Amino acid sequence: MRIGFVGLGRMGSAMAARLLAVGGDLKVWNRSLGRTEPLQKQGADVARDLRDFADREVVFTMLSDDAALRAVVLGDPGLLAILQEGAIHVSCSTITVALSEELGQRHRERRQEYLALPVFGRPEAAAAGKLVLVVGGKLALLDRLRPLLAPLGQQLFHVGERPEQANLVKLSGNFLLATVIESLGESMALVEKGGIDRHAYLELLTSTLFSAPVYRTYGGLIANRSVRPAAFLATLGQKDLRLAMEAADALRVPMPFAGPLRDRFLALAARGETDVDWAAIGIEAAREAGLDPAKPE
Amino acid sequence: MRIGFVGLGRMGSAMAARLLAVGGDLKVWNRSLGRTEPLQKQGADVARDLRDFADREVVFTMLSDDAALRAVVLGDPGLLAILQEGAIHVSCSTITVALSEELGQRHRERRQEYLALPVFGRPEAAAAGKLVLVVGGKLALLDRLRPLLAPLGQQLFHVGERPEQANLVKLSGNFLLATVIESLGESMALVEKGGIDRHAYLELLTSTLFSAPVYRTYGGLIANRSVRPAAFLATLGQKDLRLAMEAADALRVPMPFAGPLRDRFLALAARGETDVDWAAIGIEAAREAGLDPAKPE
Amino acid sequence: MRIGFVGLGRMGSAMAARLLAVGGDLKVWNRSLGRTEPLQKQGADVARDLRDFADREVVFTMLSDDAALRAVVLGDPGLLAILQEGAIHVSCSTITVALSEELGQRHRERRQEYLALPVFGRPEAAAAGKLVLVVGGKLALLDRLRPLLAPLGQQLFHVGERPEQANLVKLSGNFLLATVIESLGESMALVEKGGIDRHAYLELLTSTLFSAPVYRTYGGLIANRSVRPAAFLATLGQKDLRLAMEAADALRVPMPFAGPLRDRFLALAARGETDVDWAAIGIEAAREAGLDPAKPE
Amino acid sequence: MRIGFVGLGRMGSAMAARLLAVGGDLKVWNRSLGRTEPLQKQGADVARDLRDFADREVVFTMLSDDAALRAVVLGDPGLLAILQEGAIHVSCSTITVALSEELGQRHRERRQEYLALPVFGRPEAAAAGKLVLVVGGKLALLDRLRPLLAPLGQQLFHVGERPEQANLVKLSGNFLLATVIESLGESMALVEKGGIDRHAYLELLTSTLFSAPVYRTYGGLIANRSVRPAAFLATLGQKDLRLAMEAADALRVPMPFAGPLRDRFLALAARGETDVDWAAIGIEAAREAGLDPAKPE
Repeated sequence: MRIGFVGLGRMGSAMAARLLAVGGDLKVWNRSLGRTEPLQKQGADVARDLRDFADREVVFTMLSDDAALRAVVLGDPGLLAILQEGAIHVSCSTITVALSEELGQRHRERRQEYLALPVFGRPEAAAAGKLVLVVGGKLALLDRLRPLLAPLGQQLFHVGERPEQANLVKLSGNFLLATVIESLGESMALVEKGGIDRHAYLELLTSTLFSAPVYRTYGGLIANRSVRPAAFLATLGQKDLRLAMEAADALRVPMPFAGPLRDRFLALAARGETDVDWAAIGIEAAREAGLDPAKPE
Repeated sequence: MRIGFVGLGRMGSAMAARLLAVGGDLKVWNRSLGRTEPLQKQGADVARDLRDFADREVVFTMLSDDAALRAVVLGDPGLLAILQEGAIHVSCSTITVALSEELGQRHRERRQEYLALPVFGRPEAAAAGKLVLVVGGKLALLDRLRPLLAPLGQQLFHVGERPEQANLVKLSGNFLLATVIESLGESMALVEKGGIDRHAYLELLTSTLFSAPVYRTYGGLIANRSVRPAAFLATLGQKDLRLAMEAADALRVPMPFAGPLRDRFLALAARGETDVDWAAIGIEAAREAGLDPAKPE
Repeated sequence: MRIGFVGLGRMGSAMAARLLAVGGDLKVWNRSLGRTEPLQKQGADVARDLRDFADREVVFTMLSDDAALRAVVLGDPGLLAILQEGAIHVSCSTITVALSEELGQRHRERRQEYLALPVFGRPEAAAAGKLVLVVGGKLALLDRLRPLLAPLGQQLFHVGERPEQANLVKLSGNFLLATVIESLGESMALVEKGGIDRHAYLELLTSTLFSAPVYRTYGGLIANRSVRPAAFLATLGQKDLRLAMEAADALRVPMPFAGPLRDRFLALAARGETDVDWAAIGIEAAREAGLDPAKPE
Repeated sequence: MRIGFVGLGRMGSAMAARLLAVGGDLKVWNRSLGRTEPLQKQGADVARDLRDFADREVVFTMLSDDAALRAVVLGDPGLLAILQEGAIHVSCSTITVALSEELGQRHRERRQEYLALPVFGRPEAAAAGKLVLVVGGKLALLDRLRPLLAPLGQQLFHVGERPEQANLVKLSGNFLLATVIESLGESMALVEKGGIDRHAYLELLTSTLFSAPVYRTYGGLIANRSVRPAAFLATLGQKDLRLAMEAADALRVPMPFAGPLRDRFLALAARGETDVDWAAIGIEAAREAGLDPAKPE
């Protein structure tokens, strides 16, 4: 198949490289230029602008937020106008449920296909083809694309026939991750003020009941006060929480843990800490408890 | 060693049976009688009252709360007055940090030894000798007891020289478990209102980022609306949260997730649901979102 | 001056009538027709559409939300294009800080004037000319308009040179009102479960420390379980809280009371109670505490 | 009547002086000596110890917490053992509902009378005889005491036949006051970050919807960053909130605003600010928002 890929940030580049590695016919584009070069060396075509995607059967988008995706799809020129009937848009960005729903509608009107395919995993996982793929959309459509998706991740979950359901799952997953960070932050501050070594405490947790990757990853970042450089920016985590809360608003779901999380991100932002990993919210409890938030011990 | 065991509830009975199974010289006692019979058949002596523990070198206590432990240790007759100099009290109950500190002091004054050894694990784990043992107290003392403790659990963590530090870790651990239940409850309510099957959602979570036993266990109970019979009563979970909050109060640690958890338990109690598993707090979000909290699907 | 008034809901109609009563040259318009008739009888001209406002020196708008105001000002036809240079737009709607800022910018580009003038008070207060007027914008401009505003309310507060500052004050005020409702709901549920009559309790509060109109008004509605018909819809209160949280987000202000308030409105909405007064959030605490939320006693 | 007064802190001294001023036969006692002298000069007898209260018909107690009151009433010597049959204990301290209930029971067993009479008001109000008196206990008993109570305050509310009901009302009232402080703190931080003068904002609030004494008092303290010296210590406010939460726990009342308030007091305490007025929690929002919490402007 003739594949397109729009959005070559850290995640997008790694995913595009995977598609290329299995011999795909890949044309790529990024708003800012430099990002295309490495892929070009690996054999990708580089589009001059979005109009060059008119010949693509499938186009992946991996962009930072609603505004960026909206510009690429609904702008002028935009994929909606450019793609042929029957072409497939696979949207991997973490966006609002509302925008995903709107895109589904618009593509349908143009007799184009649309899948939402947000992913879980950091850039390393993307480069290794180990992302977790969450898919929303028609199952028949997904089945046609399975071979194409295989190099991206071994685990694929089809969560519903409506594309935006995948976006909702993604947002809820990031909400869950944020609760893990916050709850670890609170319990580690508590035991540390009781004179217990936080590293030993984390070892206890993660070698028993909480032996999940996320507890190890985020517990380690919190215990080591290791929030720079950011693997996932707090500002992005804040954005995703905001989107989850918007979804909760639209679906009418009270979520008592959302408020305290929101305030953590706002406190970080109020101090101007915009370059930190979102694990930083897990250090706020220590700060409020009068512990040194910087000391790595 | 001549061992004593006080408190033969579901956990205590299973632990005492393990001690017996490896050939220990075990004398047991329980406030209400019937509970001693199975252990007697397995070879344990049954004390008529606490005074019979005067010849014990080590006495384990596993009681439901501060009041029960206080009665057994500080009451009349009580272990404090009965035990010999040099005898060791191993306290396994989930109690306040303050009481544990007080007991350490009192035993020291009587030249007796005291270890806090709260455990993580349900009765099945206790019966299988697979508890996680958290120990606070003098390391030298712990080392003397290691052989004795081996049949109770393979994983043992010494968290500090002060006994009450183990109690703090235990309380913090139960706090973390409660946050897992609540956060799963919220995210499952969110996706379910978005039309996604909650069982499939849980499968996605636990086969990827959240592949920890606690997510599987509590996620399953929430998804199945399975809260009776209780493996761990909500009223006990509420008590433990209360103790964690008391510890946070004494140590001056703001914990924003504690308030919403407290309110969940109070809402359960206000409806008179006193016989449910503490997983029930994970169904409150669904209830508030207008989903059917009973429907098992 | 030649005055225009757009938006003749309960508030807008009452305000327009006040302007008319003091002999103003008033032309009115409302999206749905019927609302203009009473004012016409009192002497107002009725515009056929917004284009008829081209001769107006000052135009008030009082609309339900951002979308409605955006349509009137920026739509086609819209006031921005229709009004002459130097004409003044006085925006009384409760809208976002962001939209108010944008309107200020757009009017400036067209050399038109813009004041934000949100009000506190219910329709009765509007009819009696007893609104509290909060003004944001150039003081010199305000001074020119003072005679015109006098019939609307005796109390006028100029809070800043930037129009959107008035909108922020309005949103913060509604946030404060919501906290009063919630806190009264919680404390009344507490004492009522302690066997104390909630009406007597309210009498105690409002005749001593809490002798402010808002405690009397909302305390009475809560105590009487009187939430229908709505004087101010819960859905509008929810909207205003949402706007306040958006402002807090943009300004980076953690607000711990906002989360619980948000959840109250969502719980109401999840039960489908869309026609109730926002005082209804003050009955949620009683409901959760197991008290009868309907019984008026 | 022969009156006794135990507890001569700032509140107790002022109340005792009022009783003396109307010609009462007053005997006073305080744990630490110096406090009795001013009253002695005004004509009070000074008891050497509590045994001297054996001849008293009515004894007021005004102590700082449960422990202090428990020592005075149930200690050795204690009022319970010392007072005659038929003597009346009027307890003015802010204590737990549970202790008040227990005292009622104990006095009843000794055929003594017991009224709970917590008060609202600061020392200045006490000195001026303008306290708000909240009474729990038998109405007939209260009626006998009315002449005696008149010099303490003009406003008296009998809230129930069970003494502890008055204590519950007092705790709920302090909870409400704390919500006022917090909500003002949040809304003032919000508008201040929007460039609005917080003093002008407060003026707007208190001259319109929020024209209650508490908004003026606490709003002023927050706006002026005036938290030292303390009129009511944050540590006492924290204690009262704790007692309110214990009551809510016993009565099973979820109170979402309690958690954030609790965390505010803990954050203050974690920074070691133990000498500040409880209005200081109203400055925490500004601090978290990145505003200068000290600047008085």
